[in-house]
Amino acid sequence: MTTASGTALALDLAGTFAFALNGALTAVRAVRLDIVGVVVLGMITALGGGILRDVLLGALPPATFSDWRYLVVAGGGGLVAFVLARQLERLAMPITVFDALGLSLFAVTGAGKALALGAGVGQSILLGTITAVGGGTLRDVLVRRVPTVLSSELYAIPAAVGAALVVVPARLGVGGPVWVFVGAGVCLAIRLVGVRFRIDAPHPPGSAAPEDRPPGQTLGQD
Amino acid sequence: MTTASGTALALDLAGTFAFALNGALTAVRAVRLDIVGVVVLGMITALGGGILRDVLLGALPPATFSDWRYLVVAGGGGLVAFVLARQLERLAMPITVFDALGLSLFAVTGAGKALALGAGVGQSILLGTITAVGGGTLRDVLVRRVPTVLSSELYAIPAAVGAALVVVPARLGVGGPVWVFVGAGVCLAIRLVGVRFRIDAPHPPGSAAPEDRPPGQTLGQD
Amino acid sequence: MTTASGTALALDLAGTFAFALNGALTAVRAVRLDIVGVVVLGMITALGGGILRDVLLGALPPATFSDWRYLVVAGGGGLVAFVLARQLERLAMPITVFDALGLSLFAVTGAGKALALGAGVGQSILLGTITAVGGGTLRDVLVRRVPTVLSSELYAIPAAVGAALVVVPARLGVGGPVWVFVGAGVCLAIRLVGVRFRIDAPHPPGSAAPEDRPPGQTLGQD
Repeated sequence: MTTASGTALALDLAGTFAFALNGALTAVRAVRLDIVGVVVLGMITALGGGILRDVLLGALPPATFSDWRYLVVAGGGGLVAFVLARQLERLAMPITVFDALGLSLFAVTGAGKALALGAGVGQSILLGTITAVGGGTLRDVLVRRVPTVLSSELYAIPAAVGAALVVVPARLGVGGPVWVFVGAGVCLAIRLVGVRFRIDAPHPPGSAAPEDRPPGQTLGQD
Repeated sequence: MTTASGTALALDLAGTFAFALNGALTAVRAVRLDIVGVVVLGMITALGGGILRDVLLGALPPATFSDWRYLVVAGGGGLVAFVLARQLERLAMPITVFDALGLSLFAVTGAGKALALGAGVGQSILLGTITAVGGGTLRDVLVRRVPTVLSSELYAIPAAVGAALVVVPARLGVGGPVWVFVGAGVCLAIRLVGVRFRIDAPHPPGSAAPEDRPPGQTLGQD
Repeated sequence: MTTASGTALALDLAGTFAFALNGALTAVRAVRLDIVGVVVLGMITALGGGILRDVLLGALPPATFSDWRYLVVAGGGGLVAFVLARQLERLAMPITVFDALGLSLFAVTGAGKALALGAGVGQSILLGTITAVGGGTLRDVLVRRVPTVLSSELYAIPAAVGAALVVVPARLGVGGPVWVFVGAGVCLAIRLVGVRFRIDAPHPPGSAAPEDRPPGQTLGQD
């Protein structure tokens, strides 16, 4: 692994917390669920990416499931978001920021775990990307939105860049914990710039925008 | 395991049959699918929870897949529901009752299997809950409804209570087959009371009810 | 296995390519996604069935994930479809044909792999069917359509027939590579005839057609 286990675990738990807040706030704001639905959606968003990663690596049972700390952080994040929903919504576009934080942290920790378990360069980058986008994709499917990974140009791309910034240096023999922070930081920056300026790739001519992304809701729903 | 294997298998197959009826009737009534769609949705509803459980436990291939009896019961349940759809609909809210039966039985058998494979107390309760709500969640996603586990307060909660009534006595050294029936019964009672009186947690003020649960359809669609 | 490994791999990669084209064209035409969404949906459609198969077999990590060739073919197919979308659309109903090709090839290769790993007759046929319909089902869920496997009579059935034409001869001791081509050919023929003549099973009386399959869009959306 390109980073000390302690650092990787801390970042993984931080990403879990960010995605739990994001999923729970999505439930509060976009779908208007009650407390059980809020916590459940927060936990699925927070744990889904890591479970997909571990299933694809054959590392079963998944760490995010067998390790109590992930469950506590995911459930706690959902509860915090339910209790503080009104305050969190006063912050500038918190849903999108929490999602971007989880995306960035899971991209680097997912790639690092894949490397540690012996996956190749390409597979490790792909696994980091899947870890990053997996939880949000489950969230979007469950609340019946076209997943962000399909509708937004700059969602899978920054995750792959972040994962590559962990994997490639490690393979070149110059890896180290610093690349985890570089990868997460670059991923976060690209994602937030994309969200802020609503950068999307051109759609085929004559096509309408996807139905679930009306103008003005992009920031809040991504 | 807190119960003899024979009892656990019988209850697991009974839950599989109940969920197969529920999924198939959902296909007949709510989505108006033809016979293939009816049987497929019945089988996915019946087998989905057990497959999720076994993937999360790393017990692959899943028992519900490698054991013929589950496949026969699931497929047979779907066919029975297709043939007897009209008669079954004359009963009082059969879809909801079959769903509640499957929920209750899978909560206790899922928790029992997790315990038997060495999972901890918290994980076993969570796995029982996932086993119970998993098939219905796949069903709802496939027919494009917000999953009941998100939209109904009393769906994950009774499943967790039922699972806990198996797991906690076993850990305290007073486990036994009787707790399987107590757990399933308590889960079923809570769920049916919730459905009957339409108990839902308060939603955030100013919010509309979820769009797919118009008044009057709650019983039939949960 | 009932066929030489080389043949099975070639057919598996051909099916992967066909599903990648199908998924990517679905993204271009039906949902109007940009290039990232197009390639991602193509890859999920192409790799989803094989991943489900390998998870259910406990053959982890999945071959479609650990073997570079699948990833390159899936990603390449998605890119080809994006670049040539206009030309491909001029062909007669290309989306449906690519889907039928992938369905047929995955039915026989999925069944063959299940047999090779020791699964029984029934399980191998079911696994071939799941491999065949899995990627398209994920595709439909992600773009929010009722899955074809539920809404079309002749989707799971031809896949099961194709898989059975590989599995049954092998168990009778008369298996061989020829059955792979027979199975895939029969599956393809049934599926295309069903699509061409819009053969669907009768729906229950008084029911409306599923909302997402308006007349005239059947060919393009299946």
